[in-house]
Amino acid sequence: MEKKCIGIDIGGTTVKIGIFETDGSLLEKWEVPTRKEEQGKYILPDVAASILEKLSQMGIQKEDVAGAGMGVPGPVLPDGYVEVCVNLGWRDMNPQEELGRLLGGIPVSSGNDANVAALGEMWQGGGKGYRDIVMVTLGTGVGGGVIINESIVAGRHGLGGEIGHIHVRDEEKEHCNCGGMGCLEQVASATGIAREARRTMAKEERPSAMRKFGDQITAKDVLDCAKAGDAMALEVMETVGRFLGLALSQIALTVDPEAFVIGGGVSKAGQFLIDIIEKYYKRYTAISQNTGILTLAKLGNDAGIYGAARLMLG
Amino acid sequence: MEKKCIGIDIGGTTVKIGIFETDGSLLEKWEVPTRKEEQGKYILPDVAASILEKLSQMGIQKEDVAGAGMGVPGPVLPDGYVEVCVNLGWRDMNPQEELGRLLGGIPVSSGNDANVAALGEMWQGGGKGYRDIVMVTLGTGVGGGVIINESIVAGRHGLGGEIGHIHVRDEEKEHCNCGGMGCLEQVASATGIAREARRTMAKEERPSAMRKFGDQITAKDVLDCAKAGDAMALEVMETVGRFLGLALSQIALTVDPEAFVIGGGVSKAGQFLIDIIEKYYKRYTAISQNTGILTLAKLGNDAGIYGAARLMLG
Repeated sequence: MEKKCIGIDIGGTTVKIGIFETDGSLLEKWEVPTRKEEQGKYILPDVAASILEKLSQMGIQKEDVAGAGMGVPGPVLPDGYVEVCVNLGWRDMNPQEELGRLLGGIPVSSGNDANVAALGEMWQGGGKGYRDIVMVTLGTGVGGGVIINESIVAGRHGLGGEIGHIHVRDEEKEHCNCGGMGCLEQVASATGIAREARRTMAKEERPSAMRKFGDQITAKDVLDCAKAGDAMALEVMETVGRFLGLALSQIALTVDPEAFVIGGGVSKAGQFLIDIIEKYYKRYTAISQNTGILTLAKLGNDAGIYGAARLMLG
Repeated sequence: MEKKCIGIDIGGTTVKIGIFETDGSLLEKWEVPTRKEEQGKYILPDVAASILEKLSQMGIQKEDVAGAGMGVPGPVLPDGYVEVCVNLGWRDMNPQEELGRLLGGIPVSSGNDANVAALGEMWQGGGKGYRDIVMVTLGTGVGGGVIINESIVAGRHGLGGEIGHIHVRDEEKEHCNCGGMGCLEQVASATGIAREARRTMAKEERPSAMRKFGDQITAKDVLDCAKAGDAMALEVMETVGRFLGLALSQIALTVDPEAFVIGGGVSKAGQFLIDIIEKYYKRYTAISQNTGILTLAKLGNDAGIYGAARLMLG
């Protein structure tokens, strides 16, 4: 039997699990709830039990499993150790060792969820066909993952791909969650885009289609107004695109990937968003016309299970 | 006989060559002039002849040479191809293949000189003992090299480690050589520091120890004045350190190296310079107290031959 690999994406609400062929075909995917009570001590046993049951149903022997990869929503040290994972209640443990034990010896590897999702997009998503990509996830926050030579660059302190906290904006006066000020996330996340729109509406008196949403405006509203040609919404998106383009150029001049893969809820705005980012990305990468392309992510919420499974293929 | 490896650093004036043990001990080093006439067609034959003669003098057989690495002052594509190397007159050639032929089959590998120097500093210099470093060379320009897992991240378009062209300064109104505006190199190279000092002197009327140098002031003069406590020189260096610290934090949040190794002529200012950079680097990397250290390069002009030799050790 062809070997299978398992991808596990541990989120704060549910754990997504997938069983894959080594060529990247998804055979089966399902979810289990994330039980966070008692410092998340039930999470891994739940996952293991669910996987063992599914393997049994599918008639897959342990020997036919190349391994199980796992994305964890927090920093993971090179040996799999997790000092603290606020979202799950975990502290000072090695989930990859523990899950390996619970799965009766199936090899387990793990990584930070944003990095693992980037690996998934490289394998079967927007970065398919490339070996070096940087993923940028524009969601509630801004996450990232750097893949060089088909491997995650996790960094020696778990900060690899933490591009949401790149400082881009000197004039920002509010603090970011990280303690810094002027982080990319503060302007380019869904939250950041909505805030930028609220600030712009408050600062100016011009009419704008955005005003009907008032303080409840979302990033999607801003993008919809911008696409419809609203001048103020376009200005907000130019600001967002300028800082994103700046950060991508800085990354390009550091690791020079073949492609930047843009994902997360905000990326549903599609090519319209890519075009705004690209204008500034090109401007700030004046040294060369020949730089990594900008493209859209394709796997959505499944990127994590794809990347986790891909972890096991070396 | 223990295998040897050869490191070659091709500069615009001289070619530096070294013969090393595989443990990094330098057995012999020497230079040959870089003959740039006729599109640099004599450079590689000169290098090959000089190496073959030296090996013969030292009683080293070709079979005892693991290989020869070469640093080239320009972009090198992954297969060793050089589209154009302005400094040498080379165009559309593969110097690594050509040198291999001239050396009668000794394996040859090559890379961009700044990247190769970074590898040298990782191997036997300021980054010794680390596997992931970023080198920052503050010379006439600002160069860089990114090393992850003991390998150069050259990038898919040769832009890996081109950190001198990271945009850091919006208020800059002059163009950089690269065509951009506000590049790190414009403020943090030796040339940039001197220019910043001239601008500051012109803008302000305060007395300063820098004024006696007038328009001939050098980066070393600025640093000497700053070390001696001159207020205006200190302000200039705070500006320089702020932009350097910003760029290093952006790099840390992308690849998270264990160490940044600071080299080049400007780095002769030593710990004084490191301290200024570090203040801002920490400020802009607020997300974690635990980030790559800043340290000084150690190999000076020999970094290139060390790194070139190290290329051959995989």
